[in-house]
Amino acid sequence: MPLSTIYELIQEDLGKVESALRSVSEIDFVWLSKLLAYSLNGGGKRIRPALTLLAGKFYNYNLDSLVPMATAVELMHTATLVHDDAIDKSAVRRGRPTINKVWNEDKAVLLGDYLFAKAGEFAADSRNLRAIKLFARTLQIISSGELNQAFNAFNLKQPREDYLQRIASKTASLFLLATESGAILSQAPEESVEILKGYGYNLGIAFQIVDDILDFIGTEEEMGKPIGSDLAQGTLTLPAMLLLERYPGENPVKALFQSRDKQENIKLAIELVRDSPIVEQCYKFASDYCSKACRNLNLLPDNASRQILIELTDYVLARKR
Amino acid sequence: MPLSTIYELIQEDLGKVESALRSVSEIDFVWLSKLLAYSLNGGGKRIRPALTLLAGKFYNYNLDSLVPMATAVELMHTATLVHDDAIDKSAVRRGRPTINKVWNEDKAVLLGDYLFAKAGEFAADSRNLRAIKLFARTLQIISSGELNQAFNAFNLKQPREDYLQRIASKTASLFLLATESGAILSQAPEESVEILKGYGYNLGIAFQIVDDILDFIGTEEEMGKPIGSDLAQGTLTLPAMLLLERYPGENPVKALFQSRDKQENIKLAIELVRDSPIVEQCYKFASDYCSKACRNLNLLPDNASRQILIELTDYVLARKR
Repeated sequence: MPLSTIYELIQEDLGKVESALRSVSEIDFVWLSKLLAYSLNGGGKRIRPALTLLAGKFYNYNLDSLVPMATAVELMHTATLVHDDAIDKSAVRRGRPTINKVWNEDKAVLLGDYLFAKAGEFAADSRNLRAIKLFARTLQIISSGELNQAFNAFNLKQPREDYLQRIASKTASLFLLATESGAILSQAPEESVEILKGYGYNLGIAFQIVDDILDFIGTEEEMGKPIGSDLAQGTLTLPAMLLLERYPGENPVKALFQSRDKQENIKLAIELVRDSPIVEQCYKFASDYCSKACRNLNLLPDNASRQILIELTDYVLARKR
Repeated sequence: MPLSTIYELIQEDLGKVESALRSVSEIDFVWLSKLLAYSLNGGGKRIRPALTLLAGKFYNYNLDSLVPMATAVELMHTATLVHDDAIDKSAVRRGRPTINKVWNEDKAVLLGDYLFAKAGEFAADSRNLRAIKLFARTLQIISSGELNQAFNAFNLKQPREDYLQRIASKTASLFLLATESGAILSQAPEESVEILKGYGYNLGIAFQIVDDILDFIGTEEEMGKPIGSDLAQGTLTLPAMLLLERYPGENPVKALFQSRDKQENIKLAIELVRDSPIVEQCYKFASDYCSKACRNLNLLPDNASRQILIELTDYVLARKR
């Protein structure tokens, strides 16, 4: 099912989030306005703000606080992408040159800072102190997850739990913020907040595992960025870990991390993963997290949003970009 | 008068801010903890948190909200320094290697992000939505000011108003946040909020002008970083602008900005500024802003804090680092 069909229920309200995002770049400072428009109109899927709105549908659906928070969540996501690309010196994202590629890394760092600040302002506009604090804590978790990844670059000896912890920090935490804030802002009872937190967390883990699979089996055209970029950055993801377990002797990931023939070994690793049951194994992991995500949804009020949250897990597993 | 004497009135409460800052690095993630301790214990003067406390002294001096906000202000300041150094590829700050020098730029960017987020959390702990929103807006102003500076690097054609606007954004806005948040959190009446805002803004402008003077006439030992670093980065500050006005023909700033003999021209520019009335002229500007800062303080309740705010302007003018 395409994302547009899944989003039908919240289409109009997601349009309000889009308007808010557009308003961010409508400022007098021409250069900054240009960079903001470029980074915010890059064809993002808007999954995270959609989650905030959907999670807000079960109790008091109050757009005055949900739209600002959904906007804040997408802005924080965009800011982390801008900083990630600057740090990784990535040249392409969503089929276009990155901010750092076009305007250099210094501008990318400052643009990211501005986006974080703007995100913080929108979060404050939710006027809910619990949600605001959750927002600030999430950015701590994301940046410490990214730091963890940076300090572990090209480290072959990482247990699988470390991978999980890392993707929990860098990706699932933002999905969790999206659903938990939606729950909080709609005055959901605590049990429902917990259920929607669990949904966001597990969906986020599944989302990142699929992302890590697609970095091996996707196409540059669909992904809008080069394949094998995790390996190139020395980031050990689940497919690479399973490859190391499956071929404990010499193998291209090992060779690559010991900095031998980078391009050749990335190519070899991708082929090895594609031609093995590793892809299937990884999808099984992702699928299990999707099941976990849905596990307790039946305890929430039965409404259209609940159905869409379930369909979103299928979308996350099936997505090609 | 040394800073310690000026701070006497708030010494104990500033100690609470120090404790809060120490608590930031007391976390399980060893690497992050190390980076945090390094960046937060670098011998900062803590002027900004002191201002929050001092501005809070005129009405309801409530430490439960003032200490978190003062901590937030210092954390935001530290985060901007960490990012600035990464962007400028500076090697030394406060007499020590910078974060980016020791741990590389990627870590510096992520550490700065973490510090911004932690600052946001402390700001939220003030539990005052107006102050929280002011906090988020200030970070937008600072980063857009820095972006403005980055886009104008090595641009010789900048009117003096642009300089003022730039230092208002990158420095005075944080001083203003410090004093305005102190006023807001102590439930100052609006007229008093305005007076304390004006004080923070004008003191911040004076502070930055003196900073820009010291980059010409200071010593590397006192400043804890190389002299002439603004010129090296292509940043046109007031002394350089006055030099361009005084010597409209060939001059070392012009030559430098046209990328000729960098080191030699920095040296020449510094000598030219030192041997001219430019330094005095700049101090006159700074001094005028200090006067403006104090202009309306007499309308505030007469207390020890008011006297210290006046003394702080003398400190800002006389400081050598």
